[in-house]
Formats: sequence, structure tokens, C-alpha cells
Amino acid sequence: MPGEFADATAVTPRGEIDPSGVNVFDCEVAVGWDIAGNANGGYLLAIAGRAMAEVVGRPPLTVTAHYLSPGLVGPHTITVEVVKIGRRIASATASMVSESTGREVLRLLGAFGQGDPSAPSIISGRPPELPEFESCVVDRAAPEHPMPEIFNRLAMRLDPACTGFREGRPTGTAEMRGWFAFADGSEIDVFALLLAVDAFPPPVFNTDLPVLWVPTVELTAHIRGIPAPGPLACVYRSRFISDGMFEEDGEVWDSTGRLVAQSRQLALTPLG
Amino acid sequence: MPGEFADATAVTPRGEIDPSGVNVFDCEVAVGWDIAGNANGGYLLAIAGRAMAEVVGRPPLTVTAHYLSPGLVGPHTITVEVVKIGRRIASATASMVSESTGREVLRLLGAFGQGDPSAPSIISGRPPELPEFESCVVDRAAPEHPMPEIFNRLAMRLDPACTGFREGRPTGTAEMRGWFAFADGSEIDVFALLLAVDAFPPPVFNTDLPVLWVPTVELTAHIRGIPAPGPLACVYRSRFISDGMFEEDGEVWDSTGRLVAQSRQLALTPLG
Repeated sequence: MPGEFADATAVTPRGEIDPSGVNVFDCEVAVGWDIAGNANGGYLLAIAGRAMAEVVGRPPLTVTAHYLSPGLVGPHTITVEVVKIGRRIASATASMVSESTGREVLRLLGAFGQGDPSAPSIISGRPPELPEFESCVVDRAAPEHPMPEIFNRLAMRLDPACTGFREGRPTGTAEMRGWFAFADGSEIDVFALLLAVDAFPPPVFNTDLPVLWVPTVELTAHIRGIPAPGPLACVYRSRFISDGMFEEDGEVWDSTGRLVAQSRQLALTPLG
Repeated sequence: MPGEFADATAVTPRGEIDPSGVNVFDCEVAVGWDIAGNANGGYLLAIAGRAMAEVVGRPPLTVTAHYLSPGLVGPHTITVEVVKIGRRIASATASMVSESTGREVLRLLGAFGQGDPSAPSIISGRPPELPEFESCVVDRAAPEHPMPEIFNRLAMRLDPACTGFREGRPTGTAEMRGWFAFADGSEIDVFALLLAVDAFPPPVFNTDLPVLWVPTVELTAHIRGIPAPGPLACVYRSRFISDGMFEEDGEVWDSTGRLVAQSRQLALTPLG
């Protein structure tokens, strides 16, 4: 599983993994996955989720992260503690700390395990209606549109109906839709889903609120399936903006039309 | 703040609260808040949330709980550890352990703080359409309808359109709606919201799936406001049932038509 994303989320255990105890990993928050110098929240979640999954030996089902301080480029340690190893589910906590500042960046709580594809399905939702991948707007940096560096790692394409906010014409509805893929063509695995749920411009950019930056307090991602090859169809919505806070709900669908991740975060609007 | 709920969620710190360290509380999982002997998940969340809020001295904004073993009646200890005390947000983890079995029941991660009522609001959602409180079905135990004991603590009233599942006629749509209040008329505070998000019969009861019990893996509640007096209008939906898992999304609205809590849980359908 080579590629920019795999390299940038690599974690190295210090010694043998103890699947019932405390495990420390080294990792590097890489250059190029940031937004104005702060590493993307989904990228940080993917690094920590990878360390947690490696300890319990199962893929993520649900991971909650609390964002405590900005993720800066450079070496970090991740301490993973197993909470419980059950038959269907294993639970673990983790803490990610910057080695240069000594500050905790993320605290996490997650559950890991395999779904049962033979179980009955009842689905009452559909993928977002998006123009074809090729017709969507490549969300890349350009002289007239300074973009976060992370967008050069991604072949992210926004639905043209959502991009007016770049020219000061928000749609008026807090929704953002588009395709997610990696610029270098890397396969999208379950850890990439942890990135995908927080990789798009926030839907509040399509409101009239004067926000440039929306700090995440808490983000929970549910991994609902292993994505089939191909770009992901994604939609993010904020329905309740009040008291200086809002939720952001994400749905991520694979190329076969199957929901592979759901997310919700609680974020802050900047103080007045 | 007297009343059955306040009594049943009381927590007692062992010694002085240390707002930057580790704090141990004693509490009692009370008789009468259970479903077939297992304490309701929202009730357990409310007890632990109360201990966490007492340590950081702020009300809950978002609390995530992982359910590790059934909550049995009897004494429990809650260990709360402060993660960070920030200007707007304080973060803490907690662990609830049964004194009789020694097993961990809940592991939690939460953020606490005050909203800013002067911030601008953009709301694109409405309370569920419910018949008047008095026209809704009192969800109480009766000889012909054996009910969980907790329903006698609550003046919970389901929308009659949702109750056919009790007679083997589910609606076919995984949705449950109704009013939440306390049977003894107690005021509904922010901790009662933590109960409300998990107090209703699960929406999957309105599908054809043969489920009697749906174990929660993870539950995250966002507290979006302090409820005005009066019953809460609640709606719960499960849109994606697949691979032996489903999400359950809750919205809780107060009597003034304001969203006061949002919740999402990941739950399991029993193994085939």
C-alpha cells in the first residue's frame, strides 16, 4: 500500500505490540497535509486511527477524536491503551502529543472490529447527486485562489453548484458536495475514510457567516464498509448553527453506491 | 433539584475535587432505570456526565460513551481525568466500573463549556410533527404490554403512528417519535438530555428485522441548549442498517421549538 497518504500516516511502534496494554508509537505529521500551517483534522485522525488499529489488530468501526491543540509538522508520539478486547468489538483510547511542543493534539476513543456482510440490510438513503467526476471542479491551489496545501494531495472535485463561495457567492445552504480521491491515485482504504470525513471545505462556507476557520471540538467517524475502488461521493451538511457552535454531518459513498462512512463533528464559530 | 432522576444520578466525590487531575466518585445504579435488568444507556451516560461536569465545573457540550458491559443495579465508581482546561472548552475522560463485578461498564470522552447565545443562528430543521402531548400514547407497563421498568420513571408518550410495532405491525420505517418528560414532573436539565437521547424504543423496532435488543457500541450526544420547561419533542431515525450494524440519530427539541440535543449511536444487530 505505497503512496503519499500511506507514507504520511505511517506509525512505528516502539518495540513489540502489547495487545492488552499500553503501546507507544512514533509518527511524523508530514509537510503538505495542512491548512494554513495546521494539519487537517481528518489527516491527524487517520494517523492515530492507524496506530489504534495496529494495536488491536482490527479495522476501525467508530473513532471519536477531541481536538486539543493544532497539529504542527514534525514528530509526534501516540500512546494507545487497550480498553477491552471483546468477541465482536475491541475498544481503545489514544493520545497524540507533539514532541516539539509537548502539547497534546488529539485524545481519542474508538471501537474496532469487522462487520458481518451476511446480515440483512435496510437502507433508506442515497448517494448525493453529483455531476460526473470529470465535470466537477478540481479543488487545487492557483494564484487567484490560494488553497490549503492538502488540496494538492487530493484529487478532490467539488460539485460546481457548491463552489460559488470562492467568489463571494455562497449558495445560502450549508452543504458541500463532491468527489474524493488521492492525487497520486492511491487506493482508498478505511484509514483514508477517516481523512475523507474532514477533508472538504466546511459547509458553513456556503452560508453568509463570516467564517474563515472552524475549529473542531469533536469528530466521530463511523466506518460502515470497505470502499470499492474509485472516487468517493461525499456530502456534508450543517443544519443547526447556534450559540457559536454547529454540527457537521458527513456521508461518504463508494463507487458502487454503498455508504462507507458517516461522520458528525461539533465545531465552533469564531468568537465575536 | 430534587426528584427521582436527580436522586438516581447523584454522584459523590471522594474528597476534594481536583480540577486538573484524577477524581473518583461513588454512585449507585438505581433500581427502576433498567430494561430487562440492564440499566438504560442514557441513564448511565447521565450519571457519568454529571461526575465529569462536576470536575470541570462546566455543563456538557459533547459526550461520547462506549458501552463495554451491562450496567447492573448497585454501587459503581467513576474515575474522571481532566484532559485539558481551555478558555472555551474543558475536556475530560471518565471510566465507570461496577464495584460488584469489577468490570468496566462505560468509557467516556467529553467536552464541557457554555454556548454563546449572542452568536448568529442559521437553523434548517424543524421539530418533529407530533400530536399534542395528551393525544400521544402513554408508554407504560401493563399486563398485556410488558414494558421496561424505566418507562415507569418517564412520562414518555409515543406518537400513535409509531406504536404498531407493539402489536406486530411495524410501520416499515425505522423512525420513532414522541414526547419525553419525567413521571414525577421533575425539571428536565442538561443531564436529562443525556438520558433522553437513549430513552425511546429503538427505531429499528419499526422495521421487519427480528430484533429485541440492540446493544450500543458508541453513543455521542451534543448538548445544543438548556431546555425550556415542558416536555421534549423527540425523533430518532436509523437510515443505514447493514453489516450487522446501524446508526441511530436523535433530535431533541424543547417546548419553544429549539433543538437542545443531537445524538448519534452505533449499535449492533444480534448475531445470526
